Amino acid sequence: MHDTLLLFGATGDLAQRYLFPSLLHLLRDRLLPSTFRVVAIGRTEHDRAGFEAWLRDHVDASDERDAAALDDLLRRTDYVSIDLNDQPSMTAALAPYADRPSVSYLATPPDLFVPAARGLKAAGLLEDPSRLVLEKPIGHDLASARSINLALKECLDESRIFRIDHYLGKAPVQNLLALRFGNTLMEAVWHNRWIQSVDILVAETAGVDGREGYYANYGALRDMVQNHMLQLLALIAMEPPNALDADSVRDEKRKVLRALRPMTAADVGNDSVRGRYGDGVVEGSAVKGFTHDSEVETFVALRAYIDNWRWAGVPFRLVTGKRMAARTTEVVVSFKPVSHWVFERPSKQRARSNRLRMRLQPEETIELGLMGSLAAPEWDAIELQPLSLDLSMSPTPHRRIAYERLLVDALKGNQTLFVRDDEVEAAWQWIDSISNAWQAAATPALAYPAGSWGPAAASDFLPPKSNGHRPGKAAK
Amino acid sequence: MHDTLLLFGATGDLAQRYLFPSLLHLLRDRLLPSTFRVVAIGRTEHDRAGFEAWLRDHVDASDERDAAALDDLLRRTDYVSIDLNDQPSMTAALAPYADRPSVSYLATPPDLFVPAARGLKAAGLLEDPSRLVLEKPIGHDLASARSINLALKECLDESRIFRIDHYLGKAPVQNLLALRFGNTLMEAVWHNRWIQSVDILVAETAGVDGREGYYANYGALRDMVQNHMLQLLALIAMEPPNALDADSVRDEKRKVLRALRPMTAADVGNDSVRGRYGDGVVEGSAVKGFTHDSEVETFVALRAYIDNWRWAGVPFRLVTGKRMAARTTEVVVSFKPVSHWVFERPSKQRARSNRLRMRLQPEETIELGLMGSLAAPEWDAIELQPLSLDLSMSPTPHRRIAYERLLVDALKGNQTLFVRDDEVEAAWQWIDSISNAWQAAATPALAYPAGSWGPAAASDFLPPKSNGHRPGKAAK
Repeated sequence: MHDTLLLFGATGDLAQRYLFPSLLHLLRDRLLPSTFRVVAIGRTEHDRAGFEAWLRDHVDASDERDAAALDDLLRRTDYVSIDLNDQPSMTAALAPYADRPSVSYLATPPDLFVPAARGLKAAGLLEDPSRLVLEKPIGHDLASARSINLALKECLDESRIFRIDHYLGKAPVQNLLALRFGNTLMEAVWHNRWIQSVDILVAETAGVDGREGYYANYGALRDMVQNHMLQLLALIAMEPPNALDADSVRDEKRKVLRALRPMTAADVGNDSVRGRYGDGVVEGSAVKGFTHDSEVETFVALRAYIDNWRWAGVPFRLVTGKRMAARTTEVVVSFKPVSHWVFERPSKQRARSNRLRMRLQPEETIELGLMGSLAAPEWDAIELQPLSLDLSMSPTPHRRIAYERLLVDALKGNQTLFVRDDEVEAAWQWIDSISNAWQAAATPALAYPAGSWGPAAASDFLPPKSNGHRPGKAAK
Repeated sequence: MHDTLLLFGATGDLAQRYLFPSLLHLLRDRLLPSTFRVVAIGRTEHDRAGFEAWLRDHVDASDERDAAALDDLLRRTDYVSIDLNDQPSMTAALAPYADRPSVSYLATPPDLFVPAARGLKAAGLLEDPSRLVLEKPIGHDLASARSINLALKECLDESRIFRIDHYLGKAPVQNLLALRFGNTLMEAVWHNRWIQSVDILVAETAGVDGREGYYANYGALRDMVQNHMLQLLALIAMEPPNALDADSVRDEKRKVLRALRPMTAADVGNDSVRGRYGDGVVEGSAVKGFTHDSEVETFVALRAYIDNWRWAGVPFRLVTGKRMAARTTEVVVSFKPVSHWVFERPSKQRARSNRLRMRLQPEETIELGLMGSLAAPEWDAIELQPLSLDLSMSPTPHRRIAYERLLVDALKGNQTLFVRDDEVEAAWQWIDSISNAWQAAATPALAYPAGSWGPAAASDFLPPKSNGHRPGKAAK
């Protein structure tokens, strides 16, 4: 396990909200080496005391154990102010940390990935076995992603590049892998004979506020679908890997991404909806619509098909949007209804098929929806009732931040939950087919009111609701 | 719904322990017609006041609502003392109740079934649409069962004969049907490709005490396997019926019973164990062994095979015994392990396959055992953990007696949960093959200490334990 973390963008939003809190928890729970140290690197000119004041001010350590961990973290942290575009001064400032293998984490704007990597290489900080961690997005389309990946590879080998998709660090994703590959009941049904559809929904209540410049170049398709949503899709749809090591898993994910049926101008009318929020009310407050000059979408709904034996004919519906009615991220695997209905009451119950519902936000859960019988007092017939079984396991008293696991994996060198260059490129290839098809078909971004579930045209793309499921009782 | 119940054996053990308490609950919950009446029939010479005193003394109505229901029941009940072997006086005593359709329930020793049915017919009480309810056992072997069924059919049509197996009235049995036929996840796996074995265990702590005479002619095989255990087996193994109506279900159960591979003298050494309890300690008390002169067994373990496409190669292990270590009735469907183990830790976890465990005694539950992942603090690997999911649903505050449902079904005329003549005979045919094989092979009843799990030779026949499964959390 490497013991040196160089954190670029240390006073940025990501570091403040997720990375420092994660480090606090890891120190508190003694999951880091005793020699662990952080080099916090930012543009802001802080002296040591200034950085300490900033950190105490910006990172919540109100819990007593977190407060002790924060003192510990500060003892282990140097602050270095660097302009990443000024390579000579960067080299000088970082040279003292080249004494042992390190992990450099670029929590910076994406246009700095390549200059930072080059600077790190020049400073001797990317020699084997040092590692580089990058945030999304990697590029804006296939061509730009390729050029970034190529530039990175000139600085260090792919086996030491860790592209983060923090969705992969969330507990329900681990649980999904355990469920899929640890259970005969899932092995038996995980294909098009028994699965009817898969829904992936990422709904945000937040708007674009403050990121108009970035967002106008991306839109919902590039900002959310290309990375988080296609990663979830790939984990659900991949063939069972030979083992859960990094390359076995990523080989399988890549195969899925390459099997995504490209969209054409003829498809996008049926299989996609673009939207853009107007004025509306979100969580009780009036908000303004997105009025940037560009034609970019803030909502996208897609019906994707994976052209292989396992998934032929099974629609994967991907929906994401800003300023939606609720903040929720969920994946729903809907099984087909039973072949034949033997019960006396014909009922809506039959249509309510078995479902596996994985929620990543706001809470992290996995639920399995089955039908059970109700010992009702009137016994004219067996009364079926939906049962909702919670498959989440939370032995630790607090919920872990997804980054905690990913930071430990990067320090340990386990790439399983990180995204490989060819996955990024395969995802962009499919995304490019959609943006090209939209352009060819002149697909408009339909207006939807902020605080709604998107344009009316997208209603068929939304996942089945979970209501009607009574909670199952816990076994004693 | 018929409104007249003629209850023969009204002062017997079954009536006192189950039938009157069931009637109390049904009256309390207003599940019987307003004109409902009971004709309680026994050998004991009670006058009206004497019977009321007996009933108040022998049936628990300590709950306030039950007390009111008991008063109600008594208002609706006549007591008639009859000697069932004295047909003329029986006819005279029962004639007043022939005014409307009735259900006659024979909670009597089995040797009275035929005389009672003939007496009822002579008294005009079995005219269409009146019905007859019988307890087990129907005969002692195939020949005697056929002769009883034939005699009954001379009194009334099979469509009006209700052979009770009270196991079929238990809530987990309804739940099993709902699970099997209401869930795609079960439809997909309910066959020999995915099921490894099925265990049916009926363990009693009680001994033979007080029933030596009866038991010496039956033994565990005829007393428990022929009826309760083969009925459970048939429900688990039957092909999906076209509908859950009585004949569709019973046609399918009969097919299973007829597909049971007969045992030969060459099989019984491998596929059966007979036992007979000796002195021992049960639930902390020293008890005496069973010392009747006959060679009858008090324990039997069988490995049964169903020779059809669905079940080829899947062992059904049936174990029952008296004076066992614990009182428990359970059915365990064990699925095969996953085809390939992708996780880093090789582990016993793989061997712990998915299981559906239905308990009928002492509590009534259905649990599904799956593997989930544990978000453990050390993330070297995905940690699999067994999850035990409770599929029981109990919306009513009290547990219902199995007879409540069966009484209502008999009054309504729904035969789905009652046993048809040809099922009884198919079951006896298989049972006879075993007793004949035992005789031909001179299979001994091996001694086992009271309070144990039977002879050591039977240890391979016992179901997998449920320990190690952590309870699943209830969904919110």
